[in-house]
Amino acid sequence: MLKTPAYATAAPNKPLAPTTIDRREPGPRDVLIDILFSGVCHSDIHQARDEWGGALFPMVPGHEIIGRVKQVGPQVSKFKTGDLVGVGCMVDSCRDCGTCHKDLEQFCERGMAATYNGTEMDRKTPTYGGYSTQITVAEHFVLKVPENLDPAGAAPLLCAGITTYSPLRQWNCKKGDRVGVVGLGGLGHMAVKLAVSMGAEVTMLSTSPSKEADARKLGAQGFALTKDEATFKRLANHFDLIINTISAPHDYNKYMGMVRPQGAMVIVGVPPEPTPVSAFSLIGGNKRLAGSMIGGIRETQEMLDYCGKHQIVSDVEIIPMQKINEAYERMIKNDVRYRFVIDIASLKQA
Amino acid sequence: MLKTPAYATAAPNKPLAPTTIDRREPGPRDVLIDILFSGVCHSDIHQARDEWGGALFPMVPGHEIIGRVKQVGPQVSKFKTGDLVGVGCMVDSCRDCGTCHKDLEQFCERGMAATYNGTEMDRKTPTYGGYSTQITVAEHFVLKVPENLDPAGAAPLLCAGITTYSPLRQWNCKKGDRVGVVGLGGLGHMAVKLAVSMGAEVTMLSTSPSKEADARKLGAQGFALTKDEATFKRLANHFDLIINTISAPHDYNKYMGMVRPQGAMVIVGVPPEPTPVSAFSLIGGNKRLAGSMIGGIRETQEMLDYCGKHQIVSDVEIIPMQKINEAYERMIKNDVRYRFVIDIASLKQA
Repeated sequence: MLKTPAYATAAPNKPLAPTTIDRREPGPRDVLIDILFSGVCHSDIHQARDEWGGALFPMVPGHEIIGRVKQVGPQVSKFKTGDLVGVGCMVDSCRDCGTCHKDLEQFCERGMAATYNGTEMDRKTPTYGGYSTQITVAEHFVLKVPENLDPAGAAPLLCAGITTYSPLRQWNCKKGDRVGVVGLGGLGHMAVKLAVSMGAEVTMLSTSPSKEADARKLGAQGFALTKDEATFKRLANHFDLIINTISAPHDYNKYMGMVRPQGAMVIVGVPPEPTPVSAFSLIGGNKRLAGSMIGGIRETQEMLDYCGKHQIVSDVEIIPMQKINEAYERMIKNDVRYRFVIDIASLKQA
Repeated sequence: MLKTPAYATAAPNKPLAPTTIDRREPGPRDVLIDILFSGVCHSDIHQARDEWGGALFPMVPGHEIIGRVKQVGPQVSKFKTGDLVGVGCMVDSCRDCGTCHKDLEQFCERGMAATYNGTEMDRKTPTYGGYSTQITVAEHFVLKVPENLDPAGAAPLLCAGITTYSPLRQWNCKKGDRVGVVGLGGLGHMAVKLAVSMGAEVTMLSTSPSKEADARKLGAQGFALTKDEATFKRLANHFDLIINTISAPHDYNKYMGMVRPQGAMVIVGVPPEPTPVSAFSLIGGNKRLAGSMIGGIRETQEMLDYCGKHQIVSDVEIIPMQKINEAYERMIKNDVRYRFVIDIASLKQA
């Protein structure tokens, strides 16, 4: 076992604190990664505080991992020592069910192995995430990261990036499409960048007028205030696609009214309670309300290659590991543009 | 004006009764149709009794019309006297907006002209439906009906047929797909026949065990009782597509659980109240909840041609016009397999 410095939560009401975890020695098809940066996703807070239930403690969060290959097992063919690589929300799946064979490992019929707050496929060994100095991961779940990307900015691509790239691809976003993005946070700012890069005409839909300048800086051509009822009339049947990143309760039906006939709204945020959906708001226009959850490994690699080609990374604020508890408090107040990324060097020096 | 015998409702609480309406003389691009059969859709009852609000009286229901061309205007090119033709839920639209140009006239941006309980595009002249001996319709909204189809059985294709054919096509139903059909009524029985004809493996999902034999007669290979909670476990992530024809309140989330990753449930029934939808039930599997409303004229013609080729019609019980009020009562009790069709000869003799 490899002794590994990390930050962990011992219980839902405890702050993150330094600890040491064990990583396995790389097996024949494993890759040992020296972690450089770890993005901080809002779901890290939900899980560390057990807001979704069923949390496993101690917990080492972090599923937006960028690092360099330190060692590979003898049967590893895709990676060599020194490669810039990433790990996202999954570290394993059964790799044998119909869903895995369709490259949708995130929906593995036996349940994928989450990068943290989960177990390996043996359903016993706990998994620990990226708030740590190294990680051992099966080759299939390691992604190549283009060397031309800033490694800190690339970290959030592993979750926020793929979460917004996948629905844009599933719904065939293309040049000239009208895309609405609801909410300008970690997910929303990636949705804007990616949709703009695909040639879409992007409108930011936000409750806050202060977001307009930010959205335009990211490339959004339009901005509409969703606190203003006139917005829903003005933009009726307007969008080919809406990417909805909001997890606060809100009325899906009003937003469906802004979707054109045969268009879609994809939700990537999870409101705490079910949302009432009127059949009329879907039937009147053959409209589609869809969900989307991260992406499979093939699509995640495609997204990273795409971001390399188009020079797309997340806007980040780099913090040392020691500032993580403060960062959580700032995230809860939406006081970050748009993602905290932990510089893991701070954990190695400590 | 052409004096035309018809059956109309004078007010929401009145029975249908004989009357005479005016039909316009066919204009240059109009087709005058001698009506042979008119299907009875459940929406006829909702509208005749003003259960959806905004009903226009007197009302002559009927939007599943089959007849023969009696006369054509001088500029009509697609039809000639004697042709077997159909008219569905629309008799006009602006034909000039982006949506009409995409052959989605049912969602015309200026609002389509419904076959009854609406107005022509002048927004003044009331429209009257198929419970009458003849109708004058713009050529673009007249459909060719294959001569090999039984004309009475073909009538419900104009609404129940296209309402179920369109979502099967929109969601690319193909050989080997697993299709679930929820509810075995006028819409459900057409969904079963059409999906089976496309090579799908069809399962009827019903609250009533008595429907199993009927569903199998229509070609369904499977049957599952939705009153049995075990059904939702047994068929978890099973269906590529569910066509949901139910308008009674029910839990969409449970049904979404039976949809495979990246599959869809399409609702064609309208429950009276909005249905709570959990974000998890869509996000966990990139699932899609969609609506669908009839079909455009191009697709309706495609459906009729398809039904001609595959010898598909609705199972109907033919009634004389004079039995319409009794038929409505039987429909409310689900006492029909699966559609009443009025033999309009009964109205001509009267």
